[in-house]
Amino acid sequence: MCRWLAYSGSPVLIEELLYKPKHSLIDQSLHSRLGATTTNGDGFGIGWYGLGGTPGLFHSVEPAWNDRNLRELAGHVSSPLVFAHIRAATGTPVQQTNCHPFRHGNWLWMHNGGIRDFQVVKRDLVLAVDPSFYPEIEGSTDSETFFYLALTLGLKEDPPKAVQDAVGFIEATGRRHGVTHPIQMTVATTDGESVWAFRYSSEGSSRSLFFSTEVNTLRMLYPDDARVQMLSDEARLVVSEPLGSLVGAWNELPESSWGVIQPGRDELHSFEPAKAAVPA
Amino acid sequence: MCRWLAYSGSPVLIEELLYKPKHSLIDQSLHSRLGATTTNGDGFGIGWYGLGGTPGLFHSVEPAWNDRNLRELAGHVSSPLVFAHIRAATGTPVQQTNCHPFRHGNWLWMHNGGIRDFQVVKRDLVLAVDPSFYPEIEGSTDSETFFYLALTLGLKEDPPKAVQDAVGFIEATGRRHGVTHPIQMTVATTDGESVWAFRYSSEGSSRSLFFSTEVNTLRMLYPDDARVQMLSDEARLVVSEPLGSLVGAWNELPESSWGVIQPGRDELHSFEPAKAAVPA
Amino acid sequence: MCRWLAYSGSPVLIEELLYKPKHSLIDQSLHSRLGATTTNGDGFGIGWYGLGGTPGLFHSVEPAWNDRNLRELAGHVSSPLVFAHIRAATGTPVQQTNCHPFRHGNWLWMHNGGIRDFQVVKRDLVLAVDPSFYPEIEGSTDSETFFYLALTLGLKEDPPKAVQDAVGFIEATGRRHGVTHPIQMTVATTDGESVWAFRYSSEGSSRSLFFSTEVNTLRMLYPDDARVQMLSDEARLVVSEPLGSLVGAWNELPESSWGVIQPGRDELHSFEPAKAAVPA
Amino acid sequence: MCRWLAYSGSPVLIEELLYKPKHSLIDQSLHSRLGATTTNGDGFGIGWYGLGGTPGLFHSVEPAWNDRNLRELAGHVSSPLVFAHIRAATGTPVQQTNCHPFRHGNWLWMHNGGIRDFQVVKRDLVLAVDPSFYPEIEGSTDSETFFYLALTLGLKEDPPKAVQDAVGFIEATGRRHGVTHPIQMTVATTDGESVWAFRYSSEGSSRSLFFSTEVNTLRMLYPDDARVQMLSDEARLVVSEPLGSLVGAWNELPESSWGVIQPGRDELHSFEPAKAAVPA
Repeated sequence: MCRWLAYSGSPVLIEELLYKPKHSLIDQSLHSRLGATTTNGDGFGIGWYGLGGTPGLFHSVEPAWNDRNLRELAGHVSSPLVFAHIRAATGTPVQQTNCHPFRHGNWLWMHNGGIRDFQVVKRDLVLAVDPSFYPEIEGSTDSETFFYLALTLGLKEDPPKAVQDAVGFIEATGRRHGVTHPIQMTVATTDGESVWAFRYSSEGSSRSLFFSTEVNTLRMLYPDDARVQMLSDEARLVVSEPLGSLVGAWNELPESSWGVIQPGRDELHSFEPAKAAVPA
Repeated sequence: MCRWLAYSGSPVLIEELLYKPKHSLIDQSLHSRLGATTTNGDGFGIGWYGLGGTPGLFHSVEPAWNDRNLRELAGHVSSPLVFAHIRAATGTPVQQTNCHPFRHGNWLWMHNGGIRDFQVVKRDLVLAVDPSFYPEIEGSTDSETFFYLALTLGLKEDPPKAVQDAVGFIEATGRRHGVTHPIQMTVATTDGESVWAFRYSSEGSSRSLFFSTEVNTLRMLYPDDARVQMLSDEARLVVSEPLGSLVGAWNELPESSWGVIQPGRDELHSFEPAKAAVPA
Repeated sequence: MCRWLAYSGSPVLIEELLYKPKHSLIDQSLHSRLGATTTNGDGFGIGWYGLGGTPGLFHSVEPAWNDRNLRELAGHVSSPLVFAHIRAATGTPVQQTNCHPFRHGNWLWMHNGGIRDFQVVKRDLVLAVDPSFYPEIEGSTDSETFFYLALTLGLKEDPPKAVQDAVGFIEATGRRHGVTHPIQMTVATTDGESVWAFRYSSEGSSRSLFFSTEVNTLRMLYPDDARVQMLSDEARLVVSEPLGSLVGAWNELPESSWGVIQPGRDELHSFEPAKAAVPA
Repeated sequence: MCRWLAYSGSPVLIEELLYKPKHSLIDQSLHSRLGATTTNGDGFGIGWYGLGGTPGLFHSVEPAWNDRNLRELAGHVSSPLVFAHIRAATGTPVQQTNCHPFRHGNWLWMHNGGIRDFQVVKRDLVLAVDPSFYPEIEGSTDSETFFYLALTLGLKEDPPKAVQDAVGFIEATGRRHGVTHPIQMTVATTDGESVWAFRYSSEGSSRSLFFSTEVNTLRMLYPDDARVQMLSDEARLVVSEPLGSLVGAWNELPESSWGVIQPGRDELHSFEPAKAAVPA
């Protein structure tokens, strides 16, 4: 499927996130350990907040491991909030408009997993997208349709509710078409301030998702580690798989849960798809 | 907009069609004379019949003038029926799934022009596509939606009627949304035996379209021209603009008309959009 | 051939340089007025100084006019020193390693024009490149070889002398192979502080090159123009063709001359290729 | 490193070679079992003989496993002699001019392995290429330089001698620069009639190489296998790794050996690099 990373904290050069860690996302593009596929070479994307009215996007159809422009960008752009995604396509074409993260105004969205039998349910799902959002759908992935369903269901007002409603609707639609386990997902979304992360699958066996331990705790655990001591208080990472093997640094998000990284106290809740969500 | 070429006749190396003529399609990609834009550099595509159960396709997002794979393919593949298209994008992304010709089973389709305010009418048009065809729509162009509308309306049974019905539906839909002149088009489509060409626009001022004079006539006009004498009896070209300046070789398709190149006698008719075509 | 732009001044969003002007470089990629070709669609590149130990580079083989990543980057990265180049290939392949600007350590280099009959003289020129630089040549253009010749001849110590020596050597080499007018060029190079620009051709009829009028003068000329008033005192542009038609804003660099934009007073001198430059 | 395949026999659709076998070359692009890397996703190329004065080439920088144009071409072009290569880059850029097979006139060449410390020895090797061939070098790989060295040393007259001379020269050059094991290689080359295959490495531990058993033998082994019975008498494959697990179908080329597949009797010899090969 895919692998992704979300960072929120003090501004860092993007290469610190993508290239420097031992089992970095770039390394995962060739050698994923926990993913459904070991190679994630069907394009990639990054989104970052900084200058400009909306987050910046860089999408490429080339494998991340050898993309020179990605390395240049990562080495010359710094940001306090970065989304990065490497893709292993599952049927839809390898093209920039199918690369994550997707953007709508100030929001970013990325997804690992899939809507099962998407070709069967796609028309019903797309029809449920608000007509005002419809023309913005540029690619052909399940992930982008999922994003616009969530927007239709109020992502900008209440992200956890909107995603739980969208998943409820996708499950109801899939089951109506005879799909047993309609969705498999880890999702990250952000408005540029908070980052919401979701882990869920209809079959109760979801793709892996980890978040980094709070920096205060890490500092106490590793009083002599210069790299850890340098991290800002608020720095947090959410990742498909740990970027290294530092003991105590990574916590798995529980099955069927969501969390939010935000100014103030972070939160963790259980994820419950809406039973009968029907977009108006 | 775009430029295209359709060839039907005895098998020829594709480079004879694309590179050898004086004002070839490749030349038109940089220096179109009659097009809405002089540069058609936003990708290209060719489709050809030969080996394999369906026609072959080659789509690229690079400008045709410098694409080495196109030159190789053209120099090493021969075919009796070739579609070629160079694109000047008008809003939708430059990606392979937006390159013409489009294919459905044994059918090919290519289009120059546009459905005006496509973002406004797209949802209504896509909804009218038969759900069994819907999952085949891979790109985001007006031209591909147009193709699947025509298929929905019976392209495989009666191409001229289906295209006239589709145009009628597009015009009705556009006008309902306040678009004055909803469509501008030259279109070619084929089932591998016959080639249908259409020239029409809501405003009665359509993009140029030319077909080559019958070979018998050309031979009488140019008894000493070796190149003309070598052409097969059935050879016919339909092109956005003439490939050279041979007097008597090119005839403009009249405003609002359609023609068919087929085994036996070719035909030319007037094009009349259906008044109230509504897909079931 | 090509078109380019060099900017030095207070930091600006790159899109202010590339997209906002009326006859911007992006517009020139489709509609160059003064170039040898109207279309410059064979890839492009930008180089900028900012974060990171060396300048950042972004190279693409796609036409600049429709490249989404370029637009994103330009809208989200700001810099006080930017090089941008759009390419019209003259024989060598369209690939990222042939895109300008070229980089060596902290230096950037870009070129419009060509070394005539490059395939004939290439081996002699490449042999003259210092063996320590040789492995850095990644592409196959005349422009990159020219850069490494200049580096071999002392670009980092005395840029004007090194370029004049390199041109002398290229002319001597070309003439030994029977080439009448061995070089045609406008060149820009920078170490991140100063920008040197060169205009020269063996035949004395060089590609156009313009530099912007000093901001103080512009402010006096246009006391009511908000855009002009906002420019920083040191801001300077050097361009293949003017980006607009503001009277008094653009000055042509004289035939056979070079100039330098630097902290303190800018300079303009005549360009005189070395008579008998032979790399050691 | 890389994986490759060479086919000689009665004309087949290229997809029969690339996609249909169980452990096909396309499968090897994601899941190589015997290669130095499991992923070979840094571009690919095919070369085939058929129409046109020289063999056709198709080179792409995308991973082979998801390239739609490759699938189209493979499904619509048939040939009696096909070279196919998937690349895992080892330092040089991913660009079409670095994709194998390389072509010179009617000859094709592809290589798996590498010239060690190529950046150190490159200048000496390139200098040894005949100046008449020099301008044809378009990319930056060791493999292409190796090809032009072999051409310089008489590839067209006596391929085994020329390759053994080139390897001798590469080893002498490498050792002069302090490289212990200068070369690692499997190579295939053809003039469109015969196919020569080479397996060698300075350290005596070469990449794997297999050739298919003669069809007569296979037919006796598998009297009931329709697929085997259909093969033409002359059909032969040389591959980096077996395409399936049919017992008796694949024979490993011995360490330090070369073979030729030709009209008449095929041959197998030991490979002995020239001791003191110095290009004139």
